[in-house]
Amino acid sequence: MAQTRQLRLGAFMRPVSLHTGAWRYPGAYPDANFNFAHLKRFAQRLEGAKFDAFFMADHLAVLNMPIEALKRSHTVTSFEPFTLLSALAAVTDRIGLVATASTTFDEPYHIARRFASLDHISGGRAGWNIVTTSNPDAALNFGRQEHVEHGERYRRAREFYDVVTGLWDSFADDAFVRDAESGLYFDPLKLHVLDHKGPSLSVRGPLNIARSPQGWPVIVQAGASEPGRQLAAETAEVIFAAHADLAAGQRFYADVKARAVKAGRSRDDIKILPGAFVVVGDTVEEARAKRAKLDSLVYYESGIASLSIAIGHDASGFDPDAPLPDIPETNASKSGRERVIELAREEDLTVRQLAQRLGGYSGLAFVGTAKAIADEMEEWLVSEGSDGFNVMFPFLPAGLDDFVDKVVPELQRRNIFRREYEGSTLRENLGLARPANRFFEEAPVDRRKAV
Amino acid sequence: MAQTRQLRLGAFMRPVSLHTGAWRYPGAYPDANFNFAHLKRFAQRLEGAKFDAFFMADHLAVLNMPIEALKRSHTVTSFEPFTLLSALAAVTDRIGLVATASTTFDEPYHIARRFASLDHISGGRAGWNIVTTSNPDAALNFGRQEHVEHGERYRRAREFYDVVTGLWDSFADDAFVRDAESGLYFDPLKLHVLDHKGPSLSVRGPLNIARSPQGWPVIVQAGASEPGRQLAAETAEVIFAAHADLAAGQRFYADVKARAVKAGRSRDDIKILPGAFVVVGDTVEEARAKRAKLDSLVYYESGIASLSIAIGHDASGFDPDAPLPDIPETNASKSGRERVIELAREEDLTVRQLAQRLGGYSGLAFVGTAKAIADEMEEWLVSEGSDGFNVMFPFLPAGLDDFVDKVVPELQRRNIFRREYEGSTLRENLGLARPANRFFEEAPVDRRKAV
Ligand SMILES: Cc1cc2nc3c(=O)[nH]c(=O)nc-3n(C[C@H](O)[C@H](O)[C@H](O)COP(=O)(O)O)c2cc1C
Ligand SMILES: Cc1cc2nc3c(=O)[nH]c(=O)nc-3n(C[C@H](O)[C@H](O)[C@H](O)COP(=O)(O)O)c2cc1C
Repeated sequence: MAQTRQLRLGAFMRPVSLHTGAWRYPGAYPDANFNFAHLKRFAQRLEGAKFDAFFMADHLAVLNMPIEALKRSHTVTSFEPFTLLSALAAVTDRIGLVATASTTFDEPYHIARRFASLDHISGGRAGWNIVTTSNPDAALNFGRQEHVEHGERYRRAREFYDVVTGLWDSFADDAFVRDAESGLYFDPLKLHVLDHKGPSLSVRGPLNIARSPQGWPVIVQAGASEPGRQLAAETAEVIFAAHADLAAGQRFYADVKARAVKAGRSRDDIKILPGAFVVVGDTVEEARAKRAKLDSLVYYESGIASLSIAIGHDASGFDPDAPLPDIPETNASKSGRERVIELAREEDLTVRQLAQRLGGYSGLAFVGTAKAIADEMEEWLVSEGSDGFNVMFPFLPAGLDDFVDKVVPELQRRNIFRREYEGSTLRENLGLARPANRFFEEAPVDRRKAV
Repeated sequence: MAQTRQLRLGAFMRPVSLHTGAWRYPGAYPDANFNFAHLKRFAQRLEGAKFDAFFMADHLAVLNMPIEALKRSHTVTSFEPFTLLSALAAVTDRIGLVATASTTFDEPYHIARRFASLDHISGGRAGWNIVTTSNPDAALNFGRQEHVEHGERYRRAREFYDVVTGLWDSFADDAFVRDAESGLYFDPLKLHVLDHKGPSLSVRGPLNIARSPQGWPVIVQAGASEPGRQLAAETAEVIFAAHADLAAGQRFYADVKARAVKAGRSRDDIKILPGAFVVVGDTVEEARAKRAKLDSLVYYESGIASLSIAIGHDASGFDPDAPLPDIPETNASKSGRERVIELAREEDLTVRQLAQRLGGYSGLAFVGTAKAIADEMEEWLVSEGSDGFNVMFPFLPAGLDDFVDKVVPELQRRNIFRREYEGSTLRENLGLARPANRFFEEAPVDRRKAV
């Protein structure tokens, strides 16, 4: 039975909205970033809607913004990913749990253990979003005076991936015989000592944990630079991307899938999920009004700072309630500048509205009725702009509930999104193969017979 | 109302029994070390019995034993502490959750975040067992060719503690005002940047997480050496000790409490909980038979290796089914040697039984009826041998169920163990004060009024 291409949906949680005005939105929980009861409710709702994964961003320092902006942002505090996702694992059954972890400021033995452990605890639902950490302030929290250089970060990341996946393969899948009669717990011939010695890392192994349900937790990547794309093409199974529009999405999609094929993989081995900020209304006017309301909660001064950077010109003297004035050419990024000018014109925004948009969230957004949002998502899917989306909820719980109650049923009606989970692991739901153990032959079990 | 001194009870989980024969015991779950459903059941039973804490040991390498012994031990695989305890936090309400974490092979920013996050998620039930990691194999998994020297490990541990507790104090307890109206999320005057620069560590801060319910998770320590005791006296609120008998417990108790007073603390600021292996029977004969059965499941060759080390003489040629023969004096530790000879005589053990005892567990044990075990525990408590115990269950679930069903009610009848949790945090249950924030005055809230 031929199946229509299916959308994959992740929920981008930080752990709540990344929009700095979100906590002030009517009905929002201002403390959600450190209130587990709310997060449990969010995860359970997402699971009820059959989302592929709950995705937890992570930062190893408070975000580097001026204190005047920081003090207005709920993102200054949040749970640590492993503690949050493990707790959520105990109160959910099917949704994937993707944690961000940095290869620059952590150790492969720790990372391998934690993800394998999360995979065991969740019954095969763990995913690792590999980041190299771009915030230079993180370095200061880890004994360094300055950030690790970009190329060096990616070289270490590639080696780190080899070590972590090698540690995950320490035991064959069938190593643990647990024969109480003879007293043999595992077969020592099915234990592999990695003994890795490379330019950045030296790790002996073995890992002190059994190979996990998925073999390897799902590998996710979010870097956009040349080395970031290359690392993704070679290793990632899911990519979290950030695109301004469909054309940019299609270019990225074609580029990364081609790189994957060149690296000896198949196009389907990588699912590309751009972040999409989704605001749902019963009419397009209502959706736009919600967004305008949300943007109006952004601190004006931080918005103006973002606007000034984007146009390469000090915007603090502009009349906030007038349209964007003509601004002289500068040496700011031309495309960034043009994008801002176009945005102001298209949506007929005042300086204040434009500034608050930039200070809130100005990336890819679908704002409208459930039907119109489903149309856009379907177009991206059909025209190879993406394999799905990493959905960003503008505010919670209402923005999440709107998506679940209105957009998901619309996607299901079109048969481009599941009504039931296909399997019990994140890999099964994403349609990704379980990786073979690189050190051991597949166990001689006829899987068809086991059914 | 004067109250009888109260026993504190921790459950020492690794995450299951530390006895290498435990997984083979009739009725045991051989896969419990990586089966979350079992661990959830154990934690919930312990909570029903009002245990203070579920304590998770941790090792950063497979235990260094010969492969012939290792392959017979369930301890080769286990969950990572933060993933396990966070998952348990979501399915329990009151029991404390103590994770072991090494100061030698981790970073203070990570450790501070994870424990604070676990404390938030669990509503104030986290504890940190500070270890410096004695297994030299761990070093090989973290980029080193050899272990970090003992004194250096403890110097780093002391500084690490200062940094972690400093990071926990990044925000005043009342920093988060979350005033949606004005848009102020936190008061920047209540944020402290640590800026630590010391001999071993350099960490700027602040931590990107709010001060947690307990202020600081409870500090636990398990080192026994001179620097280990000193670190404990200065910093620990709970000590996990290992003693051969009551006299040794009393010496340790007196020594560490005196050191604490010298360091400016009060005796009650530290609770000393020796590990105790408890085997319950309806008669003493039944209890001894259970233990004998358990010991008989230990691999004989590893037992003989342990015996040979203990007596300083190759025991592999001894008749396994005869009593211990006379052995010539050697330069093995005299007290260790005498202890083994006495043990064999006291319990009338054959060479095989003695070897299997040493290969299983030969430390402090209470083996008998519930009443006799309660008698011993009460004697330790009353005679200042300890403030309670870190109970080791010989096998699970039966050994745990026996303790919960038989010993706990006996302790409660004597009014030396709680029938209900005193509070909702681990500190409240242990009778430990909530630490003040070192950088900020107490919030001007009259706590008496709040009641
Ligand atoms: C959708 C998305 C999510 C990201 N999430 C994180 C994150 O949680 N933590 C982090 O340190 N970096 C995160 N990043 C940053 C990337 O990992 C990467 O550091 C950044 O894009 C710069 O990468 P590049 O140098 O390859 O362009 C994210 C990026 C994108 C596009
Ligand atoms: C009851 C108890 C539990 C312990 N648990 C652990 C543990 O989980 N992980 C670990 O690395 N060391 C553990 N240790 C070892 C101690 O932390 C310490 O490394 C060891 O006792 C040597 O310390 P010392 O050098 O101060 O004597 C434990 C020790 C005791 C007595």
